[in-house]
Amino acid sequence: MGRWEPNARGRLEQAALELYAERGYEQTTVAEITGVAGLTERTFFRHFADKREVLFAGSGRLEEICVHAVAGAPGSATPMEAAAAALDAAAGVFEERGDLVLRRQGVIDANAELRERELIKLASLSDALAAALCDRGVDELTAGLTAEAAVAVLKVAFRRWVDGGREPRLRQLLAECFAVLRTESARGAVAP
Amino acid sequence: MGRWEPNARGRLEQAALELYAERGYEQTTVAEITGVAGLTERTFFRHFADKREVLFAGSGRLEEICVHAVAGAPGSATPMEAAAAALDAAAGVFEERGDLVLRRQGVIDANAELRERELIKLASLSDALAAALCDRGVDELTAGLTAEAAVAVLKVAFRRWVDGGREPRLRQLLAECFAVLRTESARGAVAP
Repeated sequence: MGRWEPNARGRLEQAALELYAERGYEQTTVAEITGVAGLTERTFFRHFADKREVLFAGSGRLEEICVHAVAGAPGSATPMEAAAAALDAAAGVFEERGDLVLRRQGVIDANAELRERELIKLASLSDALAAALCDRGVDELTAGLTAEAAVAVLKVAFRRWVDGGREPRLRQLLAECFAVLRTESARGAVAP
Repeated sequence: MGRWEPNARGRLEQAALELYAERGYEQTTVAEITGVAGLTERTFFRHFADKREVLFAGSGRLEEICVHAVAGAPGSATPMEAAAAALDAAAGVFEERGDLVLRRQGVIDANAELRERELIKLASLSDALAAALCDRGVDELTAGLTAEAAVAVLKVAFRRWVDGGREPRLRQLLAECFAVLRTESARGAVAP
């Protein structure tokens, strides 16, 4: 089979997520994934380095989308507004992928090693957001804190969205979480 | 040698950190650590499960201290004030341990696996803080966001403290970071 397999990547992802959810991530082999997808292992390895990458290949793309959104925010946008634009763009991707996101998260939640990998990807996203904010002329301290706070909002909102079975909309949850962050930060201790 | 070795734990930690810094974490063996400390491997394994635990055994203790501080904050304290009390308690521990903290961080920064372990410990701290806030009657969303924001503040302030060679004081950096968080959150996008 050649490179012209229609939507091979999507079929492999779909098959992998089904198998990971049904049999467990650890128990699933690449041979089983390609069997369900009706594709060869050679095709699998053209798209993914290993079976873990099926779950995390999208993280790099998500990071790019977020960084692009920060860079593209209006010049008048505050650091937190630029970071919110990044999360808004990320939310669009999650909403679009729909149930695949929930299925993927269920697999990750069930496996300690995958949960750790997810934390690493979020830390990488935070670093990328901070760098993108610095590129807008934001000072390093403000950029670092804004990026970390935005990723905190994303983590909490995303968890609620997943636990609620994609209800309410992720964008609405993000807005609610930003509002809570604002309120609670304002109620924090004032520097001496 | 018996259980009465004076300060065996501290001597093992000191020896391990010296060796990790000098020769690299991966290249150092438990035998070398006990050799430098003048103690037996049996004593080592009475205190630490493995050589990685020398670096992370303190994380559980730190988490306890933070949780205790949240629980002990005045009833009138807001969630962010209670979380700030936790970071203040943590800062006391870091300041007290002085250069050992910097040496430990240098070892962790130099090793990807250790950096990942550190992220996991911070995620665990965030979960523990959120649970402690819930125990104070704070709703789950506010608790989760406040805990994540506080850990974000800790990460950024701690990094500046380490990079500055423990100058200025960590408590001052924490206060500055809380102030930036408050300002930047207030300048964020308002929910539609």
